[in-house]
Amino acid sequence: MGSKIRVTIWNEFVHERGNDKMGEWIRGIYPEGIHGCLAKALAADDLEIRTATLDMPEQGLPAEVLDNTDVLLWWGHCAHAQVDDALVDRIQERVLHGMGLIVLHSGHMSKIFRRMMGTSCRLHWREAGERERVWTVDPFHPIAQGVPESFAIPHTEMYGERFDIPQDGHIVFLSWYEGGNVFRSGVAFQRDAGHIFYFSPGHETYPIYHDPNVQRVIGNAVRWAAPANGILPGRVTRQRDSLEPITTRDPMAQLDTSELHKAL
Amino acid sequence: MGSKIRVTIWNEFVHERGNDKMGEWIRGIYPEGIHGCLAKALAADDLEIRTATLDMPEQGLPAEVLDNTDVLLWWGHCAHAQVDDALVDRIQERVLHGMGLIVLHSGHMSKIFRRMMGTSCRLHWREAGERERVWTVDPFHPIAQGVPESFAIPHTEMYGERFDIPQDGHIVFLSWYEGGNVFRSGVAFQRDAGHIFYFSPGHETYPIYHDPNVQRVIGNAVRWAAPANGILPGRVTRQRDSLEPITTRDPMAQLDTSELHKAL
Amino acid sequence: MGSKIRVTIWNEFVHERGNDKMGEWIRGIYPEGIHGCLAKALAADDLEIRTATLDMPEQGLPAEVLDNTDVLLWWGHCAHAQVDDALVDRIQERVLHGMGLIVLHSGHMSKIFRRMMGTSCRLHWREAGERERVWTVDPFHPIAQGVPESFAIPHTEMYGERFDIPQDGHIVFLSWYEGGNVFRSGVAFQRDAGHIFYFSPGHETYPIYHDPNVQRVIGNAVRWAAPANGILPGRVTRQRDSLEPITTRDPMAQLDTSELHKAL
Amino acid sequence: MGSKIRVTIWNEFVHERGNDKMGEWIRGIYPEGIHGCLAKALAADDLEIRTATLDMPEQGLPAEVLDNTDVLLWWGHCAHAQVDDALVDRIQERVLHGMGLIVLHSGHMSKIFRRMMGTSCRLHWREAGERERVWTVDPFHPIAQGVPESFAIPHTEMYGERFDIPQDGHIVFLSWYEGGNVFRSGVAFQRDAGHIFYFSPGHETYPIYHDPNVQRVIGNAVRWAAPANGILPGRVTRQRDSLEPITTRDPMAQLDTSELHKAL
Repeated sequence: MGSKIRVTIWNEFVHERGNDKMGEWIRGIYPEGIHGCLAKALAADDLEIRTATLDMPEQGLPAEVLDNTDVLLWWGHCAHAQVDDALVDRIQERVLHGMGLIVLHSGHMSKIFRRMMGTSCRLHWREAGERERVWTVDPFHPIAQGVPESFAIPHTEMYGERFDIPQDGHIVFLSWYEGGNVFRSGVAFQRDAGHIFYFSPGHETYPIYHDPNVQRVIGNAVRWAAPANGILPGRVTRQRDSLEPITTRDPMAQLDTSELHKAL
Repeated sequence: MGSKIRVTIWNEFVHERGNDKMGEWIRGIYPEGIHGCLAKALAADDLEIRTATLDMPEQGLPAEVLDNTDVLLWWGHCAHAQVDDALVDRIQERVLHGMGLIVLHSGHMSKIFRRMMGTSCRLHWREAGERERVWTVDPFHPIAQGVPESFAIPHTEMYGERFDIPQDGHIVFLSWYEGGNVFRSGVAFQRDAGHIFYFSPGHETYPIYHDPNVQRVIGNAVRWAAPANGILPGRVTRQRDSLEPITTRDPMAQLDTSELHKAL
Repeated sequence: MGSKIRVTIWNEFVHERGNDKMGEWIRGIYPEGIHGCLAKALAADDLEIRTATLDMPEQGLPAEVLDNTDVLLWWGHCAHAQVDDALVDRIQERVLHGMGLIVLHSGHMSKIFRRMMGTSCRLHWREAGERERVWTVDPFHPIAQGVPESFAIPHTEMYGERFDIPQDGHIVFLSWYEGGNVFRSGVAFQRDAGHIFYFSPGHETYPIYHDPNVQRVIGNAVRWAAPANGILPGRVTRQRDSLEPITTRDPMAQLDTSELHKAL
Repeated sequence: MGSKIRVTIWNEFVHERGNDKMGEWIRGIYPEGIHGCLAKALAADDLEIRTATLDMPEQGLPAEVLDNTDVLLWWGHCAHAQVDDALVDRIQERVLHGMGLIVLHSGHMSKIFRRMMGTSCRLHWREAGERERVWTVDPFHPIAQGVPESFAIPHTEMYGERFDIPQDGHIVFLSWYEGGNVFRSGVAFQRDAGHIFYFSPGHETYPIYHDPNVQRVIGNAVRWAAPANGILPGRVTRQRDSLEPITTRDPMAQLDTSELHKAL
């Protein structure tokens, strides 16, 4: 990692180009796409930001991009199934070696998030344009710095519990919805060397990514998820020699297993 | 779930049939295969046990077997790559709906365990026939009932930290090795409705599955992992109607999005 | 532990005896005290229930009561400070050896809960008689069995986040409040051998303990918190002899430290 | 917090002044006391270090010291009982508001550590001058930066599992002992705003605090535990006004409870 955090904002970029009234509506809110909105919102001296979309060669994430990304933001919804499994493998490998991953809103059902979690990542949902109130449950977490104790999002899609994620998610934010639901809306994980943050506010049909609190959270998450020590090399796991003396006599020693061991 | 817990012990069953001195050695220890040894060891009135191996039709786990399994034990090592991805998908789906999963020894690198964890599950390892001492770190856990505070395994393969697993693993056992390593050797997880237990003692070239303490741990784990409420049906996640009144006026209401909503 | 779970329901029993309109109101709801209401609600063949109140000798919990309690329920509010510190010490010791502890509503600020948590246990609160909706966030937990996915409490005191508790609380229930707040309303902990469950629904001025869902949760919690293996004896922690041979020569051996060691 | 982290190293300072051969031995290793050794070892431009001992006025921690401490290190052993309960109250209050706390070795039984944990903090122990090997279990944690994957301590007092601490301790280090024991030797906690780190290596009769790896761990822990946002003011927890409109009619409204509410 150089002196700047290298951020890649990935967006499936489908809804914003819809050929109907809904597409028009969304373009009215995100004329440069959700990725374009986020790139502008996050612009800062310590970040080197690029965007990538599903329609680009190698789905926007060829090796030279992925290998030069410290933190990857992921926005996807209706095109989850189109993402190549081999790309998901490569992203997972990068995260496990230290690349940060910020999963946004409907990305909860993306292949990469479900891969990292191992769970179904299911939840309740409802589109009614209702009001959401986001509560900062761990005000001491780096991702919560400068974020008020609670803030309102005037119109949103509801995401509600039961949210099927592992239990080591560190809950930074909890959301309240007008229609009576609650949700773990900001949750932080560590997987091997990688930091992962899921943040639910951000539906495509509302201007949620223009909200300064939402932008603040995502910006904090980028800094929190950046790998402290760069991306790690692959780790060799065979430890042939013991660190302390072994005096036990291995009953297997009578067999010549050298061929076997060479293969391992 | 009927009155008995339906247990399926799966074994890749490759090492035990090796056509060389090593195979002979292993057959000397597990003449009926590791699955056969475990089936005998676990036999009890409250369990209905069957075994399955990789060489069977549909790799031993056709739908009628998997759908009638409450707890699946998994032993694999050199044939991890041969397990079909589609089977891994089906097992994961079952676990998330409540089927217990007990992953044994080298199963830490199996496709199904890595799928459930989301991590690399790497560790250090060494074959030197050294001594292992297993410590009960949470004596209050159901899996530790009747297990002594510590017990020795005279000869084992060493598995050592750093073990790349998620941090919500409830540590029931920690292991000490003669050669200077330590390991989280018994770790319990919950993923959606499913209970998962990883237990490292159990190398194919040593009679570890004949050890009464090891058998006790695995037997306890089977009861702990059995689904309390049966396997759940798939959960419908759309919550169209709110539980509390929504008075906010959705700005989207001016669009006719009924077509979109039908599709979701 | 005998064949029945021995339950002691402790109540400071102050509000119910108030000499004013408020006391009258509360008596209208809980004529036999909150402890009396709970004792009736929990009555079952597998439970042996007694009640205890602050005004009784030794504050209702002399050694013979505490030593014969498997699960202690705690309701307190305005008299927290009157509970003897020495009694808190004894309760803590019992919990660490396996006695279950169910802390109800305003018990979040009780000496015993704060002692077990080590944190301030502060929260936001508001008395407005507003509506609460309780969500089952872990439907697979024993405490949630038979409890609906969500249920409403028509009038309640609001308890809201940030709730200052340790992060290993297993969240079973989350609450939504009409006034815009959210709360971890049902949280399970383990401390040494003891199981602890905090459950917030249950204000003295509303008939919340008459609610069948609330009663169900508390009844489930009693069974979950009952010590599986009885109350443990004190554990001797000195391990004078090593389990594996020590060949290192202790440089201290030149000193005669036998006097020191005797004292330890 | 100013630009430097203000560190106070507290030591009961009893063993080092023993009037016998043992005292002589210890003075040979720590001529300026354990606190003096640590103060020298930690000296750095970003730290402002002072030391405090039990024999000083107000046990070394009067308000003006505690109020100007960002991170407190605690070494105690035979004089735990002499520490004033009121001082423990004040330290706990400071930690909950953000002061870091580093608890060293036998401090596991100190009043302040047990207060913060809520558990008994018991463990197995043995003085045999045996060899310890410390394993870095989370190499990605800030406290592990620059610390090797494992390092040996030639002579130590054994501290072994079962260690009675809460389960949300983030395990950074695990120790192996020649005599066959294992131990969670470096564990990180958060309690309200405060970061707490327990680190077991460091017995008074061996020169463990002269070990560069041990010093590195403690130095890292000081930076990790320093409050990111300064010490917080007390938080007012009453939230009289709701954030969202409450339309439910409180049945209590018929009572004039203004007197009651004033008192709260």
